[in-house]
Amino acid sequence: MRPEKEKEQDQVVVDAGMKRYRNGEIWEFEDDMGVSDGDSGVLLGLDGGTTSTVCICMPMIPFSHSQLHSLPTLARAVAGCSNHNSVGEIAARETIEQVMADALSKCGSKRSSVRAVCLAVSGVNHPTDQQRILSWLRDIFPSHVRLYVLNDALAALSSGTMGKLHGCVLIAGTGSIAYGFTEDGKEARAAGAGPVLGDWGSAYGIAAQALTAVVRAYDGRGPSTMLTSSIFQRHGLSSAEEIIGWTYADPAWARIAALVPNVVTCAEAGDEVAHNILLEAVQELASSVKAVVNRLGLCGQDGQSGFPLVMVGGVLEAHRGSWDIGKEVIKCISKYFPGVIPIRPKVEPAVGAAWLAWNFFMKEKEKEKELPILED
Amino acid sequence: MRPEKEKEQDQVVVDAGMKRYRNGEIWEFEDDMGVSDGDSGVLLGLDGGTTSTVCICMPMIPFSHSQLHSLPTLARAVAGCSNHNSVGEIAARETIEQVMADALSKCGSKRSSVRAVCLAVSGVNHPTDQQRILSWLRDIFPSHVRLYVLNDALAALSSGTMGKLHGCVLIAGTGSIAYGFTEDGKEARAAGAGPVLGDWGSAYGIAAQALTAVVRAYDGRGPSTMLTSSIFQRHGLSSAEEIIGWTYADPAWARIAALVPNVVTCAEAGDEVAHNILLEAVQELASSVKAVVNRLGLCGQDGQSGFPLVMVGGVLEAHRGSWDIGKEVIKCISKYFPGVIPIRPKVEPAVGAAWLAWNFFMKEKEKEKELPILED
Repeated sequence: MRPEKEKEQDQVVVDAGMKRYRNGEIWEFEDDMGVSDGDSGVLLGLDGGTTSTVCICMPMIPFSHSQLHSLPTLARAVAGCSNHNSVGEIAARETIEQVMADALSKCGSKRSSVRAVCLAVSGVNHPTDQQRILSWLRDIFPSHVRLYVLNDALAALSSGTMGKLHGCVLIAGTGSIAYGFTEDGKEARAAGAGPVLGDWGSAYGIAAQALTAVVRAYDGRGPSTMLTSSIFQRHGLSSAEEIIGWTYADPAWARIAALVPNVVTCAEAGDEVAHNILLEAVQELASSVKAVVNRLGLCGQDGQSGFPLVMVGGVLEAHRGSWDIGKEVIKCISKYFPGVIPIRPKVEPAVGAAWLAWNFFMKEKEKEKELPILED
Repeated sequence: MRPEKEKEQDQVVVDAGMKRYRNGEIWEFEDDMGVSDGDSGVLLGLDGGTTSTVCICMPMIPFSHSQLHSLPTLARAVAGCSNHNSVGEIAARETIEQVMADALSKCGSKRSSVRAVCLAVSGVNHPTDQQRILSWLRDIFPSHVRLYVLNDALAALSSGTMGKLHGCVLIAGTGSIAYGFTEDGKEARAAGAGPVLGDWGSAYGIAAQALTAVVRAYDGRGPSTMLTSSIFQRHGLSSAEEIIGWTYADPAWARIAALVPNVVTCAEAGDEVAHNILLEAVQELASSVKAVVNRLGLCGQDGQSGFPLVMVGGVLEAHRGSWDIGKEVIKCISKYFPGVIPIRPKVEPAVGAAWLAWNFFMKEKEKEKELPILED
């Protein structure tokens, strides 16, 4: 433990308007580094979710937007949950600060080299969430650093559109949600209301339907299904009572959600019950996208205009078997919107967040060039 | 606090093979009573659920079965949860012991007057549950007291059939379940697997569907519905985000389940979404009964035989408006099984448990009369 007085000093401004935030220890590595050289600096992209948080550090190279995909990753750091709704404000804050420090330290950079930071964090839904995070983020970085705080869905969209905020992103992991954005800043979302409120297209939703089908087959309400032996075998169960016990033994959503591969395997082996569960999930996911696209008019007035649909999450990942949920969702959406351009991103959402930081920063720079410089 | 030694003495046998169980204080009231008179004694019926536990004390009058309904209630005592799955074995035990002592003390009886006890407790599903409860119950009562431990569904059935274990009982409160019993001891159950596993006919299931419909209307996936203003008004909410927050703020199932009257009111006012939710619930409940009746052959080989269907729980209670869920369930079941005899019990399940105690006791007495008496 360091003496209290020394800790208090961490709170004072140390250079260029940058405070040593409460956890001064996090930034101690900077003390051993020389004076920052006059390079063009770096940017940070952060994707903060309920399971993990990833921070990417990239060089701030001012080339054209089309070359963005060749921007190299200087460092990548990973930490735990940073959703303030899930772990609380203080823990989320510390996780975010630590993962940014780790990324900078890994590539030998420090805060004074940072030009822009884009935090895309789940649980950021209101401008008040944004303002709260911005206010403590401002304590960490020098005042010239551009800071952007967004919902993590925007990083996912950006990972498929190279930093452009236009189109729709469909995320289907443990939970599912569809987010849409227009170039003039309008946005809309659908689903994403969790297991109680009918997210049947999520991995959790698919798995819960499969467990229900097993119980129904067991007590005579539903047709028999391969899902019974498949799930029983996987978890060493042997009766409906045991499957009920297993379901409620641990409330973690991800544990239930992990049954999706069993459903896909059974559907591929010809099981009608499993097939129908997946079909319903496809329709649910497609209906979320449809709702968002219609509300924002992403398909144009004639319904034929092109728009990107970025697809992210375990449920939508390409699958070699005969049942590819993502492919079926695309088929279903194409019927409504022939202009849809489906994209399965090749990079992770944290890279999308870094691209957003690059884009926002360049746009602001361009604007500044147009405006007369105001001194304070 | 009493001295340890005195407490230890509570464990020894005090009279007629009756132990003073661990909580000797519970039975202290007996010390102030005179010697038990030579009356025909009393019986205890207990209905133990996850919300509350009710114990009824009745006189042990050996009249004919058809007069059972005129057996008076000597005392009624109420306590909290006694489902061992929910509060643990020790707490459940103490609740059950306390509520029985309260009932006896209220009518000036003591354990030596008890002839039979029927404990009908939720969470009793296996013979091992039964044996565990019987073994500590045996420590409380003299050895001549007849003890019967059953699942609480049997008390509910008995409350409609005057202590006869034959027919089907459909319980739809916060959760829902259908249980069936044949006169030769076979039984079957359907549904009752909780909210994750699709109990859509329960109050929780109906309410969760209503909340889902509100979210779907809000984000454009579903038609608009009166449920939105009805639920918003009731809980002072104003957006889909708030309804999501409200839903997950407190995981208690009963809190969500309490929205059923909103769904009924909206359906009665002509809202199609609410109407369809109730219709689906009716079909779910009917399908549980159908599964049980078919498995046990309660309707006979020709499908026309009569069998009682006892209907219990808030969802099935008679309702004066145009939408009576219970009535619709009966209509639906009558189509499959024209012989069904629907019964809405006039007494509570604890009385059903007391009637069971009476029935079991009388049957054993009759058998004893037929058999030669064996001395040990």
